Amino acid sequence: MILTVTLNPALDLTYAVDALVPHATHRVTAVTERPGGKGLNVAAVLHALGEPVLATGLLGGTTGGRVQDLLAADDIPTSFRRIAAETRRTVAVADGVDATGFWEPGPAVTAGEWRDFVAHFRGLLSGASVAVLSGSLPPGVPSEGYATLIALAADARVPAVLDTSGDPLRLGLAARPDVVKPNAAELAALHGDAGLDERAGADRLLELGARAVVLSRGERGLLAVTPGGSWEAVPPATVAGNPTGAGDACVAALARGLAARTPWDLLLADAAALSAAAVAAPAAGAFDAGAYRRWSNAEETPC
Amino acid sequence: MILTVTLNPALDLTYAVDALVPHATHRVTAVTERPGGKGLNVAAVLHALGEPVLATGLLGGTTGGRVQDLLAADDIPTSFRRIAAETRRTVAVADGVDATGFWEPGPAVTAGEWRDFVAHFRGLLSGASVAVLSGSLPPGVPSEGYATLIALAADARVPAVLDTSGDPLRLGLAARPDVVKPNAAELAALHGDAGLDERAGADRLLELGARAVVLSRGERGLLAVTPGGSWEAVPPATVAGNPTGAGDACVAALARGLAARTPWDLLLADAAALSAAAVAAPAAGAFDAGAYRRWSNAEETPC
Repeated sequence: MILTVTLNPALDLTYAVDALVPHATHRVTAVTERPGGKGLNVAAVLHALGEPVLATGLLGGTTGGRVQDLLAADDIPTSFRRIAAETRRTVAVADGVDATGFWEPGPAVTAGEWRDFVAHFRGLLSGASVAVLSGSLPPGVPSEGYATLIALAADARVPAVLDTSGDPLRLGLAARPDVVKPNAAELAALHGDAGLDERAGADRLLELGARAVVLSRGERGLLAVTPGGSWEAVPPATVAGNPTGAGDACVAALARGLAARTPWDLLLADAAALSAAAVAAPAAGAFDAGAYRRWSNAEETPC
Repeated sequence: MILTVTLNPALDLTYAVDALVPHATHRVTAVTERPGGKGLNVAAVLHALGEPVLATGLLGGTTGGRVQDLLAADDIPTSFRRIAAETRRTVAVADGVDATGFWEPGPAVTAGEWRDFVAHFRGLLSGASVAVLSGSLPPGVPSEGYATLIALAADARVPAVLDTSGDPLRLGLAARPDVVKPNAAELAALHGDAGLDERAGADRLLELGARAVVLSRGERGLLAVTPGGSWEAVPPATVAGNPTGAGDACVAALARGLAARTPWDLLLADAAALSAAAVAAPAAGAFDAGAYRRWSNAEETPC
């Protein structure tokens, strides 16, 4: 199975309101609740693809219990560790124009809870074909946390995909992840250079330790850079919709392809098709299955 | 003990943000969680006064469980009935200027759950000196729900205090509650007449069935109108602060005084002092104990 790690998951709430008026009180007309966090989106996409997956990470308190219940309702296999502090919530207020977001801070993880998780993760690696490490780290998890997990995966000969930003990305690179998937903004922020050429930025990630880089560039598609060559894949169609979660769908495709040793040209085209199908779906963690089927058939010739 | 009924409680979340910017994403710098709902505020005030109290009502799902946990942490005795649907949340975003509120809709209560609650309430009346019925009704509870409970309380010779608005207030009056406590806006809305004289509006509530009316008028204080006379009490001081919860502190004082058969002049002065002390405290359900002690001593001569 593919093991997805979400160390800072969330309960994502979406509130529909007629119009957002600062300093007024709003009656929320509809509430949706879903498990949030990039790793959980990857797990949901893989599960919908019929790919065996196991979601692990940290969950705490009543809100963590609610996330666990929602994952169970979606039949997603999980093996989370409990922490004492409360899992965070995010609230997105949708007013018909756009969303206004409120992100709670993540829970404080103790040193003992982190050690416990590392041991738990090591145990889960024995059944894993690929490990996916996604998203931010909560307070208390050391910034080199992903580096620790990648090193354990390498010891167990399990390829690792890393999708994070800032220090956790920089420090994670040193542990030589098999694939890192920054977007253009994350790449520029990491190098502290907004005008940096994408290709040069990706090359630098290889120098810093990545074995392969897949750069997601929105409507301009994907660029893969590896020591063995580079590839591009453009979206199979121009899709209007919700770009949140497109990167997670891309990571899901990369993990599945890595497990199956799919060649880079086919892998990248598949990732581009699945990303576009995620844009066509309303929620992160979901994709338009019909569109994906159409686009992935059309794309099975190398682009 | 004083029995407080909260049929539509909430988990009240307060999010601190630097500035509210519509259609942006905000990192919440601090989160506070508290049990919400007017009846729970009344229970919290009575508990802080050392008055034996029992909080009942309806709680559902994970959010209801969290409210239950927070009440237990505050040592407030409870006897809630569980419902299948999720208790609502409210989110107040505080940006240093003012709060922007988002109120989830209440949970749908089934006919069977409502019947079950009515039987439960009847059982609790045997130990009650006063029953306090506060706040809105969730979907599924009939608009005459409070009238049903007031009639049961009357059968058990337990005086009832009603603090609600709209149809639940109008229909509740017919069951002859011992005290109703509208504010000026609720009184005007009930009579559909924004220009109505307060005294005339209160008299009409007596005609509709109330045995006594206490009108809360913010800085202008309290007006009590009963068949045996009328009284006024002005706040003991001009207090800057948070008016949310002042009405609930007033209801707590009225319930305590009703249980102790306190004469109206002393009762109303006490309710005005406790309301002002609630304005001086930052959160609903709390009051400034030192200020209350000072003001209630000063007010123990009839005003």
